[in-house]
Amino acid sequence: MYFKNWSWFIEWLTPEEGVMRRINRVYAWERTPYQDVAVLELARIGKCLVIDGRVQSSLSDEFIYHEALVHPAMIAHGNPRSVLVLGGGEGATLREVLRHRSVERAVMVDLDPGVVELSKKYLEEWHQGCFADQRVTLVYMDGRKYVEEAVARGEQYDVVIADLVDPAEGGPAQRLYTVEFYELVKKLIGSSGVFVTQATSPSTYPDIYARLYWTLRRVFKKVSPYYTYVQSFNGLWGFLLASETVDASGLSATEVDERIKNSIYSPASLRFYDASTHQGMFSLPKHIKKLLARQLPPSTDSDTVA
Amino acid sequence: MYFKNWSWFIEWLTPEEGVMRRINRVYAWERTPYQDVAVLELARIGKCLVIDGRVQSSLSDEFIYHEALVHPAMIAHGNPRSVLVLGGGEGATLREVLRHRSVERAVMVDLDPGVVELSKKYLEEWHQGCFADQRVTLVYMDGRKYVEEAVARGEQYDVVIADLVDPAEGGPAQRLYTVEFYELVKKLIGSSGVFVTQATSPSTYPDIYARLYWTLRRVFKKVSPYYTYVQSFNGLWGFLLASETVDASGLSATEVDERIKNSIYSPASLRFYDASTHQGMFSLPKHIKKLLARQLPPSTDSDTVA
Amino acid sequence: MYFKNWSWFIEWLTPEEGVMRRINRVYAWERTPYQDVAVLELARIGKCLVIDGRVQSSLSDEFIYHEALVHPAMIAHGNPRSVLVLGGGEGATLREVLRHRSVERAVMVDLDPGVVELSKKYLEEWHQGCFADQRVTLVYMDGRKYVEEAVARGEQYDVVIADLVDPAEGGPAQRLYTVEFYELVKKLIGSSGVFVTQATSPSTYPDIYARLYWTLRRVFKKVSPYYTYVQSFNGLWGFLLASETVDASGLSATEVDERIKNSIYSPASLRFYDASTHQGMFSLPKHIKKLLARQLPPSTDSDTVA
Amino acid sequence: MYFKNWSWFIEWLTPEEGVMRRINRVYAWERTPYQDVAVLELARIGKCLVIDGRVQSSLSDEFIYHEALVHPAMIAHGNPRSVLVLGGGEGATLREVLRHRSVERAVMVDLDPGVVELSKKYLEEWHQGCFADQRVTLVYMDGRKYVEEAVARGEQYDVVIADLVDPAEGGPAQRLYTVEFYELVKKLIGSSGVFVTQATSPSTYPDIYARLYWTLRRVFKKVSPYYTYVQSFNGLWGFLLASETVDASGLSATEVDERIKNSIYSPASLRFYDASTHQGMFSLPKHIKKLLARQLPPSTDSDTVA
Repeated sequence: MYFKNWSWFIEWLTPEEGVMRRINRVYAWERTPYQDVAVLELARIGKCLVIDGRVQSSLSDEFIYHEALVHPAMIAHGNPRSVLVLGGGEGATLREVLRHRSVERAVMVDLDPGVVELSKKYLEEWHQGCFADQRVTLVYMDGRKYVEEAVARGEQYDVVIADLVDPAEGGPAQRLYTVEFYELVKKLIGSSGVFVTQATSPSTYPDIYARLYWTLRRVFKKVSPYYTYVQSFNGLWGFLLASETVDASGLSATEVDERIKNSIYSPASLRFYDASTHQGMFSLPKHIKKLLARQLPPSTDSDTVA
Repeated sequence: MYFKNWSWFIEWLTPEEGVMRRINRVYAWERTPYQDVAVLELARIGKCLVIDGRVQSSLSDEFIYHEALVHPAMIAHGNPRSVLVLGGGEGATLREVLRHRSVERAVMVDLDPGVVELSKKYLEEWHQGCFADQRVTLVYMDGRKYVEEAVARGEQYDVVIADLVDPAEGGPAQRLYTVEFYELVKKLIGSSGVFVTQATSPSTYPDIYARLYWTLRRVFKKVSPYYTYVQSFNGLWGFLLASETVDASGLSATEVDERIKNSIYSPASLRFYDASTHQGMFSLPKHIKKLLARQLPPSTDSDTVA
Repeated sequence: MYFKNWSWFIEWLTPEEGVMRRINRVYAWERTPYQDVAVLELARIGKCLVIDGRVQSSLSDEFIYHEALVHPAMIAHGNPRSVLVLGGGEGATLREVLRHRSVERAVMVDLDPGVVELSKKYLEEWHQGCFADQRVTLVYMDGRKYVEEAVARGEQYDVVIADLVDPAEGGPAQRLYTVEFYELVKKLIGSSGVFVTQATSPSTYPDIYARLYWTLRRVFKKVSPYYTYVQSFNGLWGFLLASETVDASGLSATEVDERIKNSIYSPASLRFYDASTHQGMFSLPKHIKKLLARQLPPSTDSDTVA
Repeated sequence: MYFKNWSWFIEWLTPEEGVMRRINRVYAWERTPYQDVAVLELARIGKCLVIDGRVQSSLSDEFIYHEALVHPAMIAHGNPRSVLVLGGGEGATLREVLRHRSVERAVMVDLDPGVVELSKKYLEEWHQGCFADQRVTLVYMDGRKYVEEAVARGEQYDVVIADLVDPAEGGPAQRLYTVEFYELVKKLIGSSGVFVTQATSPSTYPDIYARLYWTLRRVFKKVSPYYTYVQSFNGLWGFLLASETVDASGLSATEVDERIKNSIYSPASLRFYDASTHQGMFSLPKHIKKLLARQLPPSTDSDTVA
């Protein structure tokens, strides 16, 4: 009887703290040139994509993470026609972007074709076929390099969404969380565009979240921190929305509600995001406001966070 | 080197999911007549009280749980003079109650003198000496029994706060989460009083949270669900505020801010609760609203939840 | 850094005791009609076959288990020409049997074609191609049934080797560890044959080992218990050798040495078994002799061990 | 229900392999000036002494370890009158030494008074009051220092027993497993004395065991390796017996039996050691003989093992 629970995924938050979930099924378990990638079915959170030992998203609550990442920026912008997604290998960020009527062009840039191939094969619930949408261009390239070249080419985007693995020394996303990178992004979006990035966890990694906040503050006139709870990520998850002119946190519930109705093909199909959710995400509790109140040195190419 | 991390607390959410934290220090580890009680220092969350293998609160974020439990009910009431706390052995719920200028009498009823003794000895950061406050009466008794007798005696309270262990079959709090119990509480608080209870986790135990919501709905005219994230509890934590007349979720930020200033001795000393926090806690995201939308059979003495 | 060790195999000896080893690679992970079967590479013990959460054998020390299981019985017999192997899906028991010059016929009976197919595909180091040996007959059938039919057909074997999963209520090998089964085996081997069975662990499951000893004692005139240590099985591993006439424990080191030289194609290729090993395995320490000294009720079809 | 198993001791053999046992009770959990020391009750192995995350011995099988450590050396010597024990804080090594009629003087040298005090208080089953035996002298001192001074004083011992924590870089016993130390021991025991040391695990740490073997080979004319299985140590445990003249492995079963009867006060009270046990321990299996066959550089003060 007690031999049932014999295979476990342990996500270590630190060497002294981890979350154990039983592995119920193994869909794939591979090594790409960039990282270890697995598609597993875990207890509670269900099927999930795991990269280098970290759950990237799970069937049980990927809708929370992806709706939280995409819609505030899109709604705050009001009429996004061109969108750039950096990372987002599962295809779910793209899926949420394409819900918006105004979108004419969505470019997704992911470093690792191995991840996207695996997603296409095993994560249909995530991408829901959206890679085939005519508005989509899929590019396999380092995100930093793509942005540098796009700036050189004079490209412009209304919304840029960074759906990247966490910053880690020597990791593939190390140079996508720095002042230098954000300066490039600012050029891409101009004065009316909106940028949003996942920003690690205000509960598990408060110092990283705070430092990313102050990094964006160095570059953009307006930076709106927001967050939600993502069970698969074992805590709160933080986002940072930045712009020269747009302030997402200032939208009233009525305004958010109105924009959702006008912008999204089928508002009822949203599972997480609505006006009340929006208000909740931008209502930071006192201790998180305090965490962000103290100025920190920005993350730069030569001194990156984490 | 790798022999450092040799003692672990594992909090099992289900038999297939657990959170591991290193035990850094053992203050106490005892068996009372009612339960296994330990005071441990765990990695990340610090010193904590553990009852029957569950963290009751930890030094790192007990302020979140206790402020979230106490202040919305007190603020919503507006002028609470008599308060009844059921459970709350650490003394921190009492501590938060006593911050309110209006409080003249606070009765705390805990089943287990062993827990309170341990708290007095090891959890000074929690109770901060408040057991000695002249407004406090401490009673060792089963909470259900106390409430039954208090109703019989004709006692009245402005606010009743249930800070109990989770409902569990055969557990000490089984009959403190039922229609029959809530009917008694309604008599205690009358038409203008407010009741609040911790209500387990909307993320880990959504079915229990939803059923408790519908149990209170059966008894009270107004039930306001709210929640926050508590790292030491490994997920969201849910609360239910109930009353015949008071609707905590309807308070504007300005009103909450005003009341905090007028009611609390030293508003700056609050670490979690403020007007923005209040708004965030009552702004349920769409999927939690959906969870609560479907009516469920109430928990009763003969068919208790969990 | 600490995200490396994220996938673990835990072999639970009881619900309160387990051995954790990191999963380094997944070769296969399937469900056959009979059981969960996986081929994994685990830390320390390397590639291994796992059935229903238990390591059946690993690359690091399968030679210890399989040589310990096979050679004492073969050497004690002296001139085995026909051998029956029950279970042994990896093919390694067969491999050891076929090292003996005298063997003319080896029949292997395994319940689960899925396990054998997996072995052929992934466990070449175990079977080393021996399934193709002309002396071998491979049969997919329940071992109990095979033995019943073989007795009915009047078949005879010099040596019968039971390399089965542990006895477990409702498990596939439940009726292959009983008095009724052993009576059938006695008919198969006659007065001069030798039977040997793996018999679980004298250290982890002493009561099961002792009861199996007394079960064989009920049927056979001579029963020789012996054991060795198998790291992959997390403790001592016990065997029971039974016969009407042959006493393996009485062989002198000189005699064992002589027989090895004469019987085995390439004695130097043995990695575990030699005369000193034989002496050590049959030299039970005092506490294990004591464990076996107290008579126990035999395991029967209607009251099976474990 | 599943909240029962919430506290675990994990003994890491490497960062990728560990043994988990439930902590049932905590007797003590302290930090001495030298090490972390705990007395715990663990699942399966019962009450045990834990130093720096490693089980030193447990109630369930301390008799195996201590009898295996002490009696071969004492019996091989034949008439030990003076015995030096290095380490052995639990008092059980001393207990076994004092079983021998010939012993007139037993000196025990332990670094850490804290461990001995804890043993006196919590480990009565181990020491059984033997610290009070008139033949005993208890000294708190580093073992290396004691031996250096004893040599300088011209002391002599018939048997020296090293019951120390494993060698570890920077650990308290680092200089008690070196050629320089063994040269000193050789002076203490002279040509007819016997030295024995625990020597870590031939299964878990085969390289350390082998190197210690070759370290003693550098110093002593005769070195007899032997081993047994100790569940609490999660594998085989190895010992090395050294002398200028005495060869413990050459003793016949009859001779061992005879000596036990003559030397030990109550032979029936031995639970592990008898003539058959002795034969088994010195009958190394082929792969362990092979492990020891290849010469290794000795451990020295400037290049210590582990």
